[in-house]
Amino acid sequence: MTASPFTLHSKSTDCAARRGELKTLHGTIQTPIFMPVGTQATVKSVTPENLKEMNAQIILGNTYHLFIRPGQELIRSFGGLHNFMNWDRPILTDSGGFQIFSLKELAKITEEGAAFRSHLDGAKLFLSPEDAIEVQESLGSDIMMCLDTCIPYPATREETIKSTDLTSRWAQRCRKAQNDTGQLLFGIVQGGMHHDLRKAHAEALIDIGFDGYAIGGLSVGEDKAMMQDMTEATIPHLPEDYSRYLMGVGTPEDLVEGVYRGVDMFDCVMPTRNARNGTLFTSTGKVVIKNAKYRDDKRPLDPNCNCYTCRNYSRAYLRHLFQCREILCYHLNTIHNLHYYLHLMAEMREAIEKDSFSTFRNDFYGRLETE
Amino acid sequence: MTASPFTLHSKSTDCAARRGELKTLHGTIQTPIFMPVGTQATVKSVTPENLKEMNAQIILGNTYHLFIRPGQELIRSFGGLHNFMNWDRPILTDSGGFQIFSLKELAKITEEGAAFRSHLDGAKLFLSPEDAIEVQESLGSDIMMCLDTCIPYPATREETIKSTDLTSRWAQRCRKAQNDTGQLLFGIVQGGMHHDLRKAHAEALIDIGFDGYAIGGLSVGEDKAMMQDMTEATIPHLPEDYSRYLMGVGTPEDLVEGVYRGVDMFDCVMPTRNARNGTLFTSTGKVVIKNAKYRDDKRPLDPNCNCYTCRNYSRAYLRHLFQCREILCYHLNTIHNLHYYLHLMAEMREAIEKDSFSTFRNDFYGRLETE
Repeated sequence: MTASPFTLHSKSTDCAARRGELKTLHGTIQTPIFMPVGTQATVKSVTPENLKEMNAQIILGNTYHLFIRPGQELIRSFGGLHNFMNWDRPILTDSGGFQIFSLKELAKITEEGAAFRSHLDGAKLFLSPEDAIEVQESLGSDIMMCLDTCIPYPATREETIKSTDLTSRWAQRCRKAQNDTGQLLFGIVQGGMHHDLRKAHAEALIDIGFDGYAIGGLSVGEDKAMMQDMTEATIPHLPEDYSRYLMGVGTPEDLVEGVYRGVDMFDCVMPTRNARNGTLFTSTGKVVIKNAKYRDDKRPLDPNCNCYTCRNYSRAYLRHLFQCREILCYHLNTIHNLHYYLHLMAEMREAIEKDSFSTFRNDFYGRLETE
Repeated sequence: MTASPFTLHSKSTDCAARRGELKTLHGTIQTPIFMPVGTQATVKSVTPENLKEMNAQIILGNTYHLFIRPGQELIRSFGGLHNFMNWDRPILTDSGGFQIFSLKELAKITEEGAAFRSHLDGAKLFLSPEDAIEVQESLGSDIMMCLDTCIPYPATREETIKSTDLTSRWAQRCRKAQNDTGQLLFGIVQGGMHHDLRKAHAEALIDIGFDGYAIGGLSVGEDKAMMQDMTEATIPHLPEDYSRYLMGVGTPEDLVEGVYRGVDMFDCVMPTRNARNGTLFTSTGKVVIKNAKYRDDKRPLDPNCNCYTCRNYSRAYLRHLFQCREILCYHLNTIHNLHYYLHLMAEMREAIEKDSFSTFRNDFYGRLETE
């Protein structure tokens, strides 16, 4: 077992929030951190330079999508995803498990792996745990994820145990399949909505030994209280000196609540997808830019925001672009929403350094209520 | 009559190509120049900073579109189009005449003006020559265009005379309606495909006196030879000390041929529209990026191009983005195509300065034939 790539810098005295850093092949990430989602070898509508201007430290790529198009061989021939897409900072790739699960009737899970059909052309495809590692090694991501199995919500205890046990055996196979590339490999803790199964699965993965641990199977339809309860039920069973990644989460409030409970890493399509739908996050709450009340509004989206969009454009202009469905609106909105998320994480890191995270959390909710 | 805002720097000794500059409220433009089209208060998919990085000196806005959405009052309340869209270099606005003509059965032209229905919601609208000036004064463009009437191609001599005469009367009304804002106003020479009518209309407009002269009614379906013939039939009748603008033209070859014949200014949706359709201009010819032969192509689009896209991305990556219809492909392709057009104009300006334009023109066609 290798040394942990994670270094814990400080812990809050009155909550579980923590400040650390994670060392990867393409650089060291300051945590807690949010990872913009770049599904198909691009964070939708923005350039790598835009991402750097908003201090994105790491982005996420989706193995399932890249496996289907353009394929691992093409990306391998470029020396990996970094070269292919012109991004030289860290990348985390998921394993494809969650996307395959989302295909529902198009997927069939067996002991050996996942048989599924491409959502593009219906082609029959197969991904074993070993394949998932091979693909991610071709992609050359800094952080790889184990292939896991997901269950619908709600699920019975029996279904949950069966799926979680299979995920453990797949995790073992993933660890074994890994070559000495310097890429990190994270295990994914499943266990549905059961405290004891979450604990048992965390322990099983720790026995195998990974470079970090993710909390999977949340944000699948359960309510916020349940998601927070399951986060709380998992984190105490994860080793303090390894990073913790809450997958697919979430809203700004979810990030604050996750950090409060000891999470180090997040990813979610929400800031980018909402940007394209015209829903914009601000320090005082959401702005639905198509609303008529913004027609003549000369203020920036968020007077407290220093992003490119807020420095240069009015709400009225952004509304005009959105009404016209001009491509520039996706670009400007995405820059703003990602900046909002990344700036929120930077504020949280600073609050933890000052051991004032609980105060920050209260202030965060206080600001939201002003509008 | 005020002094010409145009200064002629040099003329080619063996063709009509010429090098000059045009002074406007927001700065001086070096000619010959191509103007990227920013129909709805944005050049589709790129930012003002992107345009500046590719040395765009002036852009075009469409009065018809802005009149309909978001409306002149909103833009006037921002102090004009420059502030609204965050562009501080010159803007030329067309008059809306060509767009109204394009509405066909939705438009009716009378002596008073053009009655038409909005392409968005069918609302009944009306634009007189005086209205066209008022709207363009609200937009605050640096160069305004007279409201003109267009005729279908082909048209009879009688139809052409009727339309050209009305355009002259409207031009007179436009000049009279203009306030002392410092904005330039260009007349538009019509006359269909008739040498004598082109000459007569040029003379009629010169009698009124404008700050520059456009050649309108071309690139409407006639062949290239006819377009060039009509350009040649018009230019000798335009005053040498005023700038000449060939409207809505064209391909890279059209720009070279236009400059060769003495044109100073061009605009066309071709580079931006083709970019979004995946047709890219290079120094050796067109690249249709979706073609399978680019699947593994690690070269930049154009090895001779220094644009952001060519400096950072491969053909294979651009093809992948296009296959996925990722928004980033519109952005990267547009940057490349506009850079290609603007760089071509810069090369032409340099060739004219060296009095080697005819050589440049031969070399240009020679390079195209290498692929």
